[in-house]
Amino acid sequence: MKDLQLQQILNSIRPVSKDYLERAQRKLDNLTKPRGSLGRLEELARRYAAIREDLSPSVKRKVIFTFAGDHGVVEEGVSAYPGQVTVQMVLNMLAGGAAVNVLAAHAGAEVVVVDIGVNHDFEPAGGLVVRKVGYGTRNFTKGPAMTRDEALRAIWTGIDLAEEYAKGGMDIAGTGEMGIGNTTPSSAILSVLTGLPAEAVTGRGTGIDDQVLRVKTAVIERAITVNRPDPDDPLDVLAKVGGFEIGGIAGLIIGCAARRIPVVVDGFISTAGALIATRMNPAIDEYLFYAHLSSEAGHRQTLERMGQRPILALDMRLGEGTGAALALSVIEASVKIMNEMATFESAGVDAAL
Amino acid sequence: MKDLQLQQILNSIRPVSKDYLERAQRKLDNLTKPRGSLGRLEELARRYAAIREDLSPSVKRKVIFTFAGDHGVVEEGVSAYPGQVTVQMVLNMLAGGAAVNVLAAHAGAEVVVVDIGVNHDFEPAGGLVVRKVGYGTRNFTKGPAMTRDEALRAIWTGIDLAEEYAKGGMDIAGTGEMGIGNTTPSSAILSVLTGLPAEAVTGRGTGIDDQVLRVKTAVIERAITVNRPDPDDPLDVLAKVGGFEIGGIAGLIIGCAARRIPVVVDGFISTAGALIATRMNPAIDEYLFYAHLSSEAGHRQTLERMGQRPILALDMRLGEGTGAALALSVIEASVKIMNEMATFESAGVDAAL
Repeated sequence: MKDLQLQQILNSIRPVSKDYLERAQRKLDNLTKPRGSLGRLEELARRYAAIREDLSPSVKRKVIFTFAGDHGVVEEGVSAYPGQVTVQMVLNMLAGGAAVNVLAAHAGAEVVVVDIGVNHDFEPAGGLVVRKVGYGTRNFTKGPAMTRDEALRAIWTGIDLAEEYAKGGMDIAGTGEMGIGNTTPSSAILSVLTGLPAEAVTGRGTGIDDQVLRVKTAVIERAITVNRPDPDDPLDVLAKVGGFEIGGIAGLIIGCAARRIPVVVDGFISTAGALIATRMNPAIDEYLFYAHLSSEAGHRQTLERMGQRPILALDMRLGEGTGAALALSVIEASVKIMNEMATFESAGVDAAL
Repeated sequence: MKDLQLQQILNSIRPVSKDYLERAQRKLDNLTKPRGSLGRLEELARRYAAIREDLSPSVKRKVIFTFAGDHGVVEEGVSAYPGQVTVQMVLNMLAGGAAVNVLAAHAGAEVVVVDIGVNHDFEPAGGLVVRKVGYGTRNFTKGPAMTRDEALRAIWTGIDLAEEYAKGGMDIAGTGEMGIGNTTPSSAILSVLTGLPAEAVTGRGTGIDDQVLRVKTAVIERAITVNRPDPDDPLDVLAKVGGFEIGGIAGLIIGCAARRIPVVVDGFISTAGALIATRMNPAIDEYLFYAHLSSEAGHRQTLERMGQRPILALDMRLGEGTGAALALSVIEASVKIMNEMATFESAGVDAAL
C-alpha cells in the first residue's frame, strides 16, 4: 500500500521546466552586468526560478530538517563517539547550541529536528518533531538494518514533512542529520549504488584513526556480503544497509520535488539519501542543490560519479545541515540578484558592444 | 613626505598574534563538534579573532569600498564596453541597482563608492565619496599611467578611508572596484610582480572575443616594454601600469592592516591591489581573506603563486566587490560559530573518546 503510494508520488514528479529555465536566463541577461559574469550564481537562480515556475520567486521561508537516528552498527566500534552522543546532540540542537543552529540562524532558516529513530524518548520541545520508526537500526553486519516496511516508513516520514511544510509556505528545504555512526551506512549505500569499492567511499567520519578506519571498512564490506542489497532496488539498499535518518532525507527530497520545492543537500550522509531518491526517479536530480564538498573521503568521488558539482568547498565534515545552511544563503543571494538588480534599460547603462 | 609617511605606516604593521591564533583554536576545540570538523570556517574564525585580538570579536559593521576610476588605455580597444559605462555603473550603484548593492545588502554590509578617478564630476549623493586623484589614468602604452605622486595619492586615499571608517567602528572591510578597462592594468601589475608572462594573466574581462584578447595581451606587453616598471618597487609598478582604483585598494588594505581590521579581497583586480600592498610589507598578508577564485584567466595561477586559497569558487568575474560580499557572509558565519556555539561542558555532551 505505502509501496504503491510511493510509486504514485514518484511518478508525479515532472522534469523542471525548460521554458522557465530559458526565460530565467533571459531575465538574468538583461541585468546590469556582463552576460554570465555571475557564473554559478546565475545557474542557481535560473534553476531555482524554473523549479518554482516563477521569475521573481520568493526565498523567504527556509527550513533545515535535521533527521536524527541511532545505528546498531555502532556496537562494532566504527565511531569516535559513543552512541549516547546522538541524544546529547539532539538536546544541544533543541537548546540552540549546535553548529547547525548558529549557521541556520545566520542564513535566516529554521531548524526542525526530526526524531526518526533515536534510542531515547525525548520530552516534547519546540523545534522537535517525533516521528519514530524505531529506537535505532539493527546491527547490519548480522542482518538487515531494518525491514522493508520500516524503510518505507522512514521515507514516508520525509514525504509527509515535505507536504506539511509545503502547505505552510516553505520556499526551500535543507537536509541535515545527526546520528552517531551514520557515515557507516552512508558509505555502504554509496558503495552499493555507485559501484565504487567500500574502501573508496569510507572515511574518518567524526575523526577515527587508521585502525578504526580499517575496522569500519571491513564492517561495511561484511554488511554488503551478508545482506546482498540489490543495487537496482534503492529501497532494498536502504533497508539492508541504511539508516532511518537517511530514509527520512530521501523522503523529504521526494516530497519536495513532488511539490516543486528546491532542496539543498547537505554533505556526505545527505548525499546517500539523495542518491536513494534520485535512483527512484532521476528527474528528482534537477530539484537538488548539492551544498558542499565534504572533506569526508569518498564524497568527491561520489559526486563526480553522480555528475554533481557542489556549491561550496570549505573542508567541512560536520553534517547536521551545516553545509546546507551556508549554501542556502548563497542560493538566496542568487535569487535576490534575479529579483532586485536593475536592468540595462532601467538604469540607463549601455550594454556590451 | 607622503612617501616617508607611507613607510611609517607600513612599518607600524605587526604580524598577527600567534598567541591569539592558538587561543582561538582552543576555544573552537571546546565547541560541540568534532575537532577541526568545520574546516575552513575554523581557519577563518581563528584568524579573524587573532587579527582583532579578541576571542569574541564583533563582526557587525561591514563595509565594502568600491573604488571607481577610468583608464586611458581603453582607447586601445581592450574592453567590451565603452569608457562611459564607468559613469553609468557608478550611478547605478548609487541608485542601488548593481550586483554589489544586492549582494552587500544580503550580507548586511554597506557599500561606499569612492570616485578616485572617474572621468566625470558626480553630483553629491549618499554612499558616494569623491576623492579624485585625476580624471582617469593616461594611456600607458605611451608612457606611465600616472605620476609617482599620483600613485602615492591613490594609496593614501585608501589609507585615509581605512582610518576614517576604523574610527567609525568598522569591523571588517571588503574591496571592490568599477572601471571599464581595469583588468588590463591588473594583468600588467600581476605579470610584473609575479613574473608570469602577460599571456598567462590576461583574460576576457567583461567578455571580449579572441581577437580583442590578442590586442589586449599585446597592449600589456607593450606597456611593460615601454615603461619598464621595477618589480622591486611596487609603487613604481602602480604608477607605470596601474590604475587609481587599484592604488586605492592597496591603500585601503594597508590602512586596515595598520588598524588590525580584516580585509576581504574581492577578485582579479583587487588581487592586483593586494599584491602591491603585500609586496610593500609581507606581514599584511595575514590580514587578508581572498574572497573567491575569479573565472578571469590568470587569477588561479596568480593566487597559486601567492600561496593563497580563496574562500569561494563560483565562476564569478564581475568585480565591484560582489565576491567580497558573498565571502563576508561566510566569514561572519565563522565568527558566529566561535561566539555562539555551546561548549561540550555547557551542553553536557561527551567529547570524543
